[in-house]
Amino acid sequence: MNQERKTVIIIGGGFGGLSAAKKLRNKEVNVILIDKTNHHLFQPLLYQVATAGLSPAYIAFPLRSIFRKSKNVQVILGEVKRIDRKSKKVYLNGENYSYDFLIVAVGARHHYFGNNEWEKIAPGLKTLQDAINIREKILYAFEKAERTLDPKEQQKYLNFVIVGGGPTGVEMAGAIAEIAKKTLIEDFKKINPSKAKIFLIEALDRILPTYPLDLSIKAKKDLEEMGVNVLLNTRVLDIRNEMVITDKQTIEASTVIWAAGNKANPLIEQLETEVDRMGRAIVTPYLTLKDDENVFVIGDAAAAFDKNGNTLPGVSPVAITQGRYVAKSILKKLKNKPIKPYRYFDKGSLATIGKAKAVADFGWIKFSGFFAWLIWVFVHIFFLIGFKNRFIVLIEWIFAYFTHQKSARLIVDEKILKSS
Amino acid sequence: MNQERKTVIIIGGGFGGLSAAKKLRNKEVNVILIDKTNHHLFQPLLYQVATAGLSPAYIAFPLRSIFRKSKNVQVILGEVKRIDRKSKKVYLNGENYSYDFLIVAVGARHHYFGNNEWEKIAPGLKTLQDAINIREKILYAFEKAERTLDPKEQQKYLNFVIVGGGPTGVEMAGAIAEIAKKTLIEDFKKINPSKAKIFLIEALDRILPTYPLDLSIKAKKDLEEMGVNVLLNTRVLDIRNEMVITDKQTIEASTVIWAAGNKANPLIEQLETEVDRMGRAIVTPYLTLKDDENVFVIGDAAAAFDKNGNTLPGVSPVAITQGRYVAKSILKKLKNKPIKPYRYFDKGSLATIGKAKAVADFGWIKFSGFFAWLIWVFVHIFFLIGFKNRFIVLIEWIFAYFTHQKSARLIVDEKILKSS
Repeated sequence: MNQERKTVIIIGGGFGGLSAAKKLRNKEVNVILIDKTNHHLFQPLLYQVATAGLSPAYIAFPLRSIFRKSKNVQVILGEVKRIDRKSKKVYLNGENYSYDFLIVAVGARHHYFGNNEWEKIAPGLKTLQDAINIREKILYAFEKAERTLDPKEQQKYLNFVIVGGGPTGVEMAGAIAEIAKKTLIEDFKKINPSKAKIFLIEALDRILPTYPLDLSIKAKKDLEEMGVNVLLNTRVLDIRNEMVITDKQTIEASTVIWAAGNKANPLIEQLETEVDRMGRAIVTPYLTLKDDENVFVIGDAAAAFDKNGNTLPGVSPVAITQGRYVAKSILKKLKNKPIKPYRYFDKGSLATIGKAKAVADFGWIKFSGFFAWLIWVFVHIFFLIGFKNRFIVLIEWIFAYFTHQKSARLIVDEKILKSS
Repeated sequence: MNQERKTVIIIGGGFGGLSAAKKLRNKEVNVILIDKTNHHLFQPLLYQVATAGLSPAYIAFPLRSIFRKSKNVQVILGEVKRIDRKSKKVYLNGENYSYDFLIVAVGARHHYFGNNEWEKIAPGLKTLQDAINIREKILYAFEKAERTLDPKEQQKYLNFVIVGGGPTGVEMAGAIAEIAKKTLIEDFKKINPSKAKIFLIEALDRILPTYPLDLSIKAKKDLEEMGVNVLLNTRVLDIRNEMVITDKQTIEASTVIWAAGNKANPLIEQLETEVDRMGRAIVTPYLTLKDDENVFVIGDAAAAFDKNGNTLPGVSPVAITQGRYVAKSILKKLKNKPIKPYRYFDKGSLATIGKAKAVADFGWIKFSGFFAWLIWVFVHIFFLIGFKNRFIVLIEWIFAYFTHQKSARLIVDEKILKSS
């Protein structure tokens, strides 16, 4: 650490924090990057870990390795417990660090809309640990069905409910349908895995509501062809043990996955600043706090607005460009250069539904099917970190395409067996 | 299940149980293969998962997939709680299964020689869960060292003790030395990971005691060149929190790994038969119990003897050939054909010490160094299950050879951070 230089603390090594740190490396500032895990997680492929398609290591990259050659970037594995804007300090368990500039990129967690007791039964998908837990839950449900003679009990293990029809919910529903109808179909002797029923519940009148209407309709048709029951205009009233109660019906299911809502990390409360109803810090057009131009909030933790006053969506391109923007802003401030407000250029959205099925919306053109899926594959391989990771993920996908096999069908947790 | 056929129950899907089930597939018997996990584990490479070199999925293969096309083999994920030889039944949680022939291939766990309280501090390496726990412990020790300012405290995190100088202990010591001295050397800014000290403790006067003496000496020299402190003739008296007390010295270390001894799975007690001091069932030359020719015990759970009366070692070639032998015995019994006693032909042993370093003993020839290591690589790739797994493990090793990087440097468990 160079004592004469200003210090930038970045909390969070996701898309936003990582891109900020990359822009600041080998520049005339000290950077301290703090994350609760030791890796940057490529969240767009997390659902593939949760559905046994990929091993965790290939979508997670050690933050230390990324900055091994950047002398001005210090990586700390730790959890920030407190932010004190008055003294300009960030507190971990045991130690604290002083900042001149603070970039808060802490992301979001699931939002159960006041029903936090649902989390235990219906976990969400944000971290590698979440993904591994969901993977074991899904695979173990089939094992339990195989060991059960009672047909009603068996069906309960073979019912899967996904709450929320956004991109994550759609991807999960498609991937579970693939596992049930293709991957496992020959593996079980007593049960017929094709009896598995996948329910995708969405409160609005269409899935992928941020996409153009015709793509939503196409995605629903694709999912239904894969055997997914898409329940629109359906509200979840309660989630109890092995049971989902909606305003239309009650579904008995041992596996329920939550993909319905996000809420900013509670650390945002520490900033003592204005937040929106999802707990995101409301930021200026410069992505700073209103009363503190040295504190930036970016990515899913921030409520930033486009020129029409709409909140920017919680997607990785927003986080990445915001990270770069605030890093450049800090460098400009240090040189007393003028700073322009942040502007987001939407390059388009992609969502995959299943093998060789996807929807793409680039604004000037929108399409679906095999070609959209190929673009999805290309884009995701391209943005992964590390040549070897790209290579191995591509091999996995090529194998999966031709064999229907999934690579990481592991139940590792010994507790899962003990508890049953 | 064909009612007219005899039923063979196999407990355990390791090398012994798996090779027995493979020999019995598509034969005129019903086979029930019961395992506590859903996968066959390729244990010889487990230390590479524990040292972040490989992802778990590539050394573990779903048992169901192996037998997907064998109609006579039923795979059950479950834990056998009780074996009743009188009624010829095997009891799981909730259900039970009747057998005509029983193959017990339940393997071994670690043996702490009466000091079971050491297990929490000094875990052993038998399952994927063990390996993942050890991986996180090792990686987290470096992270903790980075966050500690007190040099004495820091050294404690950078000290690694491996108890037991057999193949597992030697492989672990070599791999941790590689991580510390090569993989992580540039990644940490405050600590110098080369300050890491690795201690390999062995009670006997040489490591790899089952190998020829000159190979033991060579392996020790190799390890020492890699920076491992090999402590021979040293007995562990006590393992306390972050401290290993031997008859020669006391070592403060936050990471201690146990590779010193094995003990048969406690399920062997259920057989109510004679056992040796390691808890292994003493078997006849036909690998059956003395008083029950329909119950076979094989692999690490059995004390079988060679023609000189020496107990056969607990290595995979013994388990594999025993599995095949008992499967053939059962098929011969069903046809009233004569059965010859089991005989083991030792084809040799291989142990790796580190990159491009190994020792090989084939009886008629013994050697060490790069060529022994190449044979080690070839043999291990060859015996892995699945073409894709072989391909990806080979890619990982080629990358690791040239870059010193480790693929799976993940700390996933959120509890590890919360507890510190």
